[in-house]
Amino acid sequence: MHAPRDDGARPTLRDVADAAGVHAATASRALNPDTRGLVNAETARRVLRAAETLGYHPNPIARSLKTAKSRTIGVVIPDLTNPLFPPIVRGIEDVLDQAGYSALIANTDSDPAREQAQVASLRSRQVEGLIVATALLDHPLLRGLHREGVKMVLVNRRVDDVEVPSVCPDDAAGIRLAVKHLAGLGHRRILHLAGPQTTSTGLARARAFQVAVREQGLVDDPARVVACDYWSEAEGAKVLSRVLDDEVDFTAVVAGNDLIALGCYDVFAERGIDCPADVSVVGFNGMPFLDKLRPPLTTVAVAHHQIGQEAARMLLESFTETDRPARSVLLSPTLVIRGSTAPPRLG
Amino acid sequence: MHAPRDDGARPTLRDVADAAGVHAATASRALNPDTRGLVNAETARRVLRAAETLGYHPNPIARSLKTAKSRTIGVVIPDLTNPLFPPIVRGIEDVLDQAGYSALIANTDSDPAREQAQVASLRSRQVEGLIVATALLDHPLLRGLHREGVKMVLVNRRVDDVEVPSVCPDDAAGIRLAVKHLAGLGHRRILHLAGPQTTSTGLARARAFQVAVREQGLVDDPARVVACDYWSEAEGAKVLSRVLDDEVDFTAVVAGNDLIALGCYDVFAERGIDCPADVSVVGFNGMPFLDKLRPPLTTVAVAHHQIGQEAARMLLESFTETDRPARSVLLSPTLVIRGSTAPPRLG
Repeated sequence: MHAPRDDGARPTLRDVADAAGVHAATASRALNPDTRGLVNAETARRVLRAAETLGYHPNPIARSLKTAKSRTIGVVIPDLTNPLFPPIVRGIEDVLDQAGYSALIANTDSDPAREQAQVASLRSRQVEGLIVATALLDHPLLRGLHREGVKMVLVNRRVDDVEVPSVCPDDAAGIRLAVKHLAGLGHRRILHLAGPQTTSTGLARARAFQVAVREQGLVDDPARVVACDYWSEAEGAKVLSRVLDDEVDFTAVVAGNDLIALGCYDVFAERGIDCPADVSVVGFNGMPFLDKLRPPLTTVAVAHHQIGQEAARMLLESFTETDRPARSVLLSPTLVIRGSTAPPRLG
Repeated sequence: MHAPRDDGARPTLRDVADAAGVHAATASRALNPDTRGLVNAETARRVLRAAETLGYHPNPIARSLKTAKSRTIGVVIPDLTNPLFPPIVRGIEDVLDQAGYSALIANTDSDPAREQAQVASLRSRQVEGLIVATALLDHPLLRGLHREGVKMVLVNRRVDDVEVPSVCPDDAAGIRLAVKHLAGLGHRRILHLAGPQTTSTGLARARAFQVAVREQGLVDDPARVVACDYWSEAEGAKVLSRVLDDEVDFTAVVAGNDLIALGCYDVFAERGIDCPADVSVVGFNGMPFLDKLRPPLTTVAVAHHQIGQEAARMLLESFTETDRPARSVLLSPTLVIRGSTAPPRLG
């Protein structure tokens, strides 16, 4: 992919230097954002103008070999088509773009073998660091990468006993908002359809649920905390069906995430359950278009674009501020109240 | 990002060759997917096993300098958070991944200046080609890239007078399905809220609409084809409001895409219009979760994952089959009938 000059050859650094009337070393410094400050501002402008006129494209691959920097990072996610991830990835890219970095995205489909292959592929491309959204509480691959000194930031998840910076929603605060809202409407028996307990998010939300139920003076019945094996609509439907077959008694559901809540909607439709008249539901994440569902879904909304931005900033900072200790950033969620929650039929 | 051996040094190609008991040149051929076929299969397996055991990562940046191949391609889209694009990008990445390629994604927000900067950045990273989803009918940047010999495949869009391969839904077939469905329900006055007429998709769907209306023996009234300036929910709402204020007479809407259809839902809610009793609506694309809307949206569903896969395959083929003429692939859409369409109240 070259922009040929009229004579068919690609303009070189020397062509740019000649056109600007400076030494090649000066032109090189002026063209590199990292060293531009070393050059007189007017000279730098002249060089950049000459480069633009000639259609000169610096070769960052050659540069990255010299400086051992690829200016790319890897983003490891389960699946881009899960609506949770596009805003996170977009937030990451917006920050990287400003810094002259690019992201390579790897979809793992939550398959450990695929994840390992994808991470190996990213490393062979010399990514300078990873943003990882697939972390499990016990995650040997990530523990190994951390031991090897690979720069990482986790989003939405944390790993046990590994000091890696992370950016997560404040799960406990979000669940507290949901439970308080339902208790305020008069619900006394609230079910938590929890996410996978192998993930920090699933575990943190389930623990927070039990604390929040007690805070509201309600009975903390273990039968009313049931975990899903996946964060999916199909799994939410499967687990809610089982709970209903087991005749667990509840008037409201706090779903581990919006997809699990959508699974509840499927079961309601199948069994003729009226939401919110028979059962109220609260989701978690604030996916797009929830306001147009039947009924519109009350949810704990998380600023995913901001999570992505924050993660990218933390990773870039870690490249230069190597002695800064690992931080965990929690972003406060907000409760968006819509039509899926109402007072219980029988108080 | 290195995986150090016990002695702290990174394993070299020679280490792998020694461990496998072959010459370095043989090891190199076995490790490169392009030349692996030149090596005895059992030898290749031995080399790959040795590489894995030693934790050898080939350096594709060094390789790409030697072979002038970066094994990356650029994907230029308006905005990853538009639900149309994640399945396309996922389809692209699934095919690239198999071929040892990676994608760099650039979001342009449909801003020509941003697009130009993003494409320049992708080229400076030596991408071997571009998959472009932002094409306008008149698109000087793309015309220039094509003239320079940049390998490109367009998705969802085409450019006038430029012979670039493209992968698009069969817009005419999709619109025909929608109009036929509505006419079959008894609608005689159907409005088309068209997409931007600066895009091939917007124009093709609007033209197909007029043809389909005549095919159904209905009156082809130009007042019932109104174009939106953007493919967005807000724009769909704005333009439908204007049409209603102008007292244009219709009982059904074929929206240019699902987001424009969602804009119709917003206006219905504002003005107390009952869908489908008062007005039926058909969308276009088949975004996720449309089945859970109020009412569930009838839509012309497009296999976007397949569009992405097909585009990636065509781009990879163009790297090797340089004399193959540019093709345009059309994928057949299907009509998914849901609750937003019903017979008109007054026949």
